[in-house]
Formats: sequence, structure tokens, C-alpha cells
Amino acid sequence: MPYTEIPGGVTAAQGFLAGSAYCGIKASNASRPDIALIHSPQETVVAATFTTNKVKAAPVRVSLAHLRTGDVRAIVANAGNANACTGLAGIETAKRMAEAAANALGLKARQVMVCSTGRIGVPLPIEKMEATIGTMPVVIDRDGSRRAAEAIMTSDTFAKEIAVEFQIDGKTVRLGGIAKGAGMIDPNMATMLSFLTTDAVIDKKQLQCALSVSVEQSFNRITIDGDMSTNDTVIMLANGTAGNKPLRHGTAAFKTFQRALDHVTKNLARMIVEDGEGVTKFVEVHVNGAATLSDARKAAEAVANSTLTKCAWFGGDPNWGRIMDALGYSGAKLREEVIDIFYDGIIAVQGGMPSKTPFAKLQEVVAQKRFTITIDLRLGKADYTVYTTDLSVDYVKLNMGE
Amino acid sequence: MPYTEIPGGVTAAQGFLAGSAYCGIKASNASRPDIALIHSPQETVVAATFTTNKVKAAPVRVSLAHLRTGDVRAIVANAGNANACTGLAGIETAKRMAEAAANALGLKARQVMVCSTGRIGVPLPIEKMEATIGTMPVVIDRDGSRRAAEAIMTSDTFAKEIAVEFQIDGKTVRLGGIAKGAGMIDPNMATMLSFLTTDAVIDKKQLQCALSVSVEQSFNRITIDGDMSTNDTVIMLANGTAGNKPLRHGTAAFKTFQRALDHVTKNLARMIVEDGEGVTKFVEVHVNGAATLSDARKAAEAVANSTLTKCAWFGGDPNWGRIMDALGYSGAKLREEVIDIFYDGIIAVQGGMPSKTPFAKLQEVVAQKRFTITIDLRLGKADYTVYTTDLSVDYVKLNMGE
Repeated sequence: MPYTEIPGGVTAAQGFLAGSAYCGIKASNASRPDIALIHSPQETVVAATFTTNKVKAAPVRVSLAHLRTGDVRAIVANAGNANACTGLAGIETAKRMAEAAANALGLKARQVMVCSTGRIGVPLPIEKMEATIGTMPVVIDRDGSRRAAEAIMTSDTFAKEIAVEFQIDGKTVRLGGIAKGAGMIDPNMATMLSFLTTDAVIDKKQLQCALSVSVEQSFNRITIDGDMSTNDTVIMLANGTAGNKPLRHGTAAFKTFQRALDHVTKNLARMIVEDGEGVTKFVEVHVNGAATLSDARKAAEAVANSTLTKCAWFGGDPNWGRIMDALGYSGAKLREEVIDIFYDGIIAVQGGMPSKTPFAKLQEVVAQKRFTITIDLRLGKADYTVYTTDLSVDYVKLNMGE
Repeated sequence: MPYTEIPGGVTAAQGFLAGSAYCGIKASNASRPDIALIHSPQETVVAATFTTNKVKAAPVRVSLAHLRTGDVRAIVANAGNANACTGLAGIETAKRMAEAAANALGLKARQVMVCSTGRIGVPLPIEKMEATIGTMPVVIDRDGSRRAAEAIMTSDTFAKEIAVEFQIDGKTVRLGGIAKGAGMIDPNMATMLSFLTTDAVIDKKQLQCALSVSVEQSFNRITIDGDMSTNDTVIMLANGTAGNKPLRHGTAAFKTFQRALDHVTKNLARMIVEDGEGVTKFVEVHVNGAATLSDARKAAEAVANSTLTKCAWFGGDPNWGRIMDALGYSGAKLREEVIDIFYDGIIAVQGGMPSKTPFAKLQEVVAQKRFTITIDLRLGKADYTVYTTDLSVDYVKLNMGE
């Protein structure tokens, strides 16, 4: 095993501190902490990926600017209010959040990344937040990962954290993180957020490369309702305290690092899907044999986002006809008469037509809480995987608002 | 008024006969007629549009071939079985359906269009169907529109028919049709079918032009779940018995014809949406001010297909944040800070931020059974409209299978 799981989440790596505080941003009366702070007293390199939604929340715009300056020492994030669709005033507020954290920690504002998740189109109670953030240096510590993970929860039902430890050049390196879910609950628009830290020695360019690859294989592969939020953000900090030789792309050491990072991001992504609103089933959709990667992706995403297919899964109905239908309108290159579809490896469709597998066998697969749909287009060598869920009555109830 | 509505549906135009018979194709025990036959004893010209899904049912493939031969004299359609994903045997079966109707009516098989809707991946009971179709010449007549409309129903709760009458060159011209819904119910995969007839004198090329334009503005603008069926088919027959001068594109007479046709297709499309499975609200999504038609379309379709937006409508929640979010990921060119959004003309979002309209005003709009969302992107002059619905708990229950 090239890595082992350890406790500690976003503070598992040496030198990182985290914690939370209650400010009262959420409309509900719950006195749950709603601001998280992560801090590195040491110099760091930073990498990040942000939502591709053209409507970008103010904190995303501010963090994008701060990403360029490097040596980020803190991440401040709030739940309960997304600071999205708030115009120039919202940008000003996001900057003030960063300044508040910078002032508290003795940093410059551009050394602070800022994130928000929650309700859209409502001004943040910034004065109250500045006061709360000002008190936070005394609550952050080396054991604060879980508290930070809890503070960024919106409709999440459990805090999401994981960390791993591995060896590079005989040095022990740690890498971990926290995340919150992509499910959205009205009138809030929640968001996928993930904060990752490592004590590996790695430069900014190499870290961004590793993170981008990892996000593409994990957070970008999950879909609950096909909607992308205005606030989605993944930030990773590396402080170099492990003392390994600088990681360089193409080396065995880099591969070890990448595998550990992928394990962390994939597991956080899986937790997000499993904690999706009203989710009763976790489904992996694999497309193999596509002519191009783009075809594989189109096919997998069409199946994973098909409302009808997801309703059928909720009901425990294999309904491969809806999968064939989704493939047909996906835009992927295909030949109906060569398509094979498998449910947990059991063939359901062979050459575009029903296989001889008894329907009851397929029903058994779809009755499970987790199963895999494998689609072989038999046209080429490209493949793509999407992690998705069913669409339940509770999903509609949770999302129908007041 | 350039046209007036008249009764008669697909048999309102002179010379067309229609009717239905019970064959027992559906798995359920209901002894409702399940085969429809439409017949023109006179020569016709034919136009048609078919599903763009790459997985095309056998009857679609056969009808596509018969479309080329012209002088179509009959349409035979069954409900209960889609004859899709049935391979070469399915093609053979679809041909035998056409032959059965041709034999019964003294036609050649290529003069018969064939349609199927219902369950996927199951062979049609073709011997039984041949016997039933053989008896149908005695049940088709000038009053058979409604019976034909009822025979093609799957999850539809009401038969859909409409016809209009108008004057061209002092001659009375009639145009009408029937349709069935796009809603899908497990384990069936239902389909949008529409059959249209007119007694106008028009050549094949002009008829195809008028039909393609009309379908683009009606059936192609409706979306219940974003899924496209493998069997969607619209067929139009013109027998020329009205005796007008041949209609030519660009003339006032052609415009009159087009308007009448558009009225018929738009109304059939509206009936399909209103009869969608578990639908409680009918919503028009208008996008104005887009830079290009393609941008307008992307924006309107993203909003109309957003699971989260549709759940909010079901709950009577205006939730314009979800509309902004859908616009953001639609791929349409936009500038967040100039977007305006209106609910039945009442401004909700102004310049990308919440307007001063009280939330209760917007709630009143969304509480209605029908309302319009207008989105002004303020970047150009292109506009596009989609007709859609909410996403209800009953939709999930109806589509979750056994």
C-alpha cells in the first residue's frame, strides 16, 4: 500500500491549524458554528480550481485574484449565505472577509482565500462576521479539522474529512482534507467546497498540476442533479514541512503523491454523493469502448443525469431501455447494434438488444444501495466514469422550497 | 381571424378516414383499443420529422424509407410496445405491420407509414397484429379521429386532437391532427407521436418546409424531463381535395396555411405538456436579448430542464437563484451584472441582483397553474421560448417502476 489512512483531515499535515466559530449567519435559529478558518503559520504554495459556472459568486472572484499572489496562509469560509448575485457590494464584502482574517492572523488580505456557501442574493452580515473572525485565532488548533468541516455544512448530514500518510525519500508526508456537499436545499443554494493540505515539498506549478488532474477524476465526476453551483471551490495548500526532495512530475515520488491525493479527493467526492439530498442509491456509470474521451464523457453524463433513469433506480427498476435512450440523445458517436450494457458485470443488453439474463437478476442488482452500470460502446478505447445517485421522492420534497 | 377551430381532428380535412381496433398488445389487461389506422383513398403528398435520438426504433427506420417514395396512403400505429432495441427482427416486424395495412387497404407496403409506442426491447406480437389490422378497413370512417387519438394513448390521461378551417383563393381548406404525450412511464418508454392531415393543394417540398418550421416552433420546444424518445414521429399528409392553387412559399396564401398549421401544432404541443406525468404547473420560459439564437436556446433549455428549478416551481417557490445558476452553466454567452428576470412580467432580478419586488409578489405568480419566466440577457436581439413543467413527487412515483 503506497499510503495509509490516518485521522486528522485538513490538520493531519504538519503545521496546519483549523477551527470554527458561531456567528449567526444562517436564517435558522440553529446555533451551529458557521465560519471555518484554516491557517498555516508557515509559508505555503497554493493551488485551486473553481466553478466553471459563468455566474460566479463574489468570494470566487476574490479568491481567483488572491490565488495569483501565492503564499496563501489562510482560508476563511462561511455557511448560510453564498454571497452570490450581490453585485459590487458583494465583492467588497468578500474582500472584507479576507481582511478580517488577515488582521486577526497578522497577514495581508491577499494571503487569505475566501469561500461562502448558502443563500443567494442576500447581503452578508459583514460587521458581525468581522467581529467573529477577529476572535478566531484563539480557537484554531492542530485538532480543529472536524470542527472546520462541521462549520461549512449546509444540507450535509455528516462532516466529511479524510487524511493519508505516505513515504517519500524516507520522509513521512501527510495529506488530508475536508469537504461539504453539492446537494442544494431551498432557499439556499449550497455548494461543493473542499480544502486540502499537505506538508509535502512541491512547487506551485506541480501542485496545481496534481490538483487539476485529481479534481478532474473526482469532484468533476460526481453529479446529483446536473446543476453546477456558482460557488464551487477546491483549494489546496502545501507548506513543505515534511522535508522531502521537491516533487517533480514524471517521477515515482510524484506518482506516489498523486495516488495519495487521488485517494483523498475520490473519497471526499464519494462522501458528497452518498450524502446528497434524498439519495438512496450510489451508482457508478462506466462507459468503455468509446471512439473518443469526449464521446465517453457525453455518454456517461447523459445516463448519469437522466431524470427517468434515476427515477427507475430509485424504484429498483433496471430499465435499460432508458439507458439506451439516454445514450441515443447524448451526442456520443455510437452504433446501437453493438452496444453492451452490464449491471454489476451481469449482461443486460447485448448488441443493442435484451440479453437472455432473467429480469429478476437485474432487479437484484438495482435493489442494492450501491451498484455499477457498465456500458461498452465497442467503437474505440476511450472510457469515462461518473458517480451518481437515484432521484427520490425525498429529493423533490427537500428541493420544493417552502 | 385567418382560421377558425372546427371539430374533427385528423379527419376534419376532406377525404381522410381514421379508426381504431383492440389487439391486446399492452401488458395490462385493459381492453382499450391499441392500434390506430389513418387512410387517404386519394393520392397524397407526405412530410415527416423523426426523433434525432441515435437509437431509432424499427418503425422510425421503416417510415424514413417509406417517406422517400411519396404518395403515402395510410398510417398504422400501435401503443403498448415501441418495437425499439429489437434488432433486425424488429425491422422485419415493422415492415410486416406496413404490409398488413397495405394488404387490408389494397396498397403497396411503401405507401404505409408505421409507428409504435410503448415498451422497449420486447418483440411485437406481429401475427395477432396482422390479424387485427386485416379487420380494420371496416372500422375506419370520417368520424374516427377521436378513436384513433385514443388508441395511441399510453400514459396520456386525455385524447389530443384539434382542427382548423381557413380560406385560400375562396376555397375552404381544412387542417387538423391528433397527438400523444411525451411523458414516459415504466416499464414503457412512451413517445411523442403526431399525425396531421390537410386537404390543401401543396407539393411535397413545400409541405415539408411548412411542417419543419412548425415542428421547430412547437413539438421541439416542449420539455418535460429533457429526455428524447427513440420513437418520436410527426407525419403530415395533404390530399389536395380543397382545390386551391398550389401553395408556394413566400405568398400570402402560404402564410395563412403556415399560421393555421402552427396553431394546430402549438396546441397539440401544449396539450402534451399539460398532460405530462405528474405535472402540476405549465411554465413558459422566454429568453430575450441573447447574442445569438443558439445562446437563447441554450439558456432557455438549461432553465427549463433544471431539476432544482422545476422542484422549486412544484413547491411554489420563486427561487430565481436557481435560474441564475442554470443560466450560468447553460453555455450561453452572458454578463451576470446585466441580467433581468421577470415572473409574469414582474421584475425579480435586475442587473443580476434581487429587485425590490416583495418576495410574496413572486410567490403569488409561482402559485398559479400557469406562468411565464422571462429572462433578458441584454446582450443582443435573439430570443427563444421553451414550454416546460414543474417536477413533482408524483412524477418520481410514476417513473420509479415496479
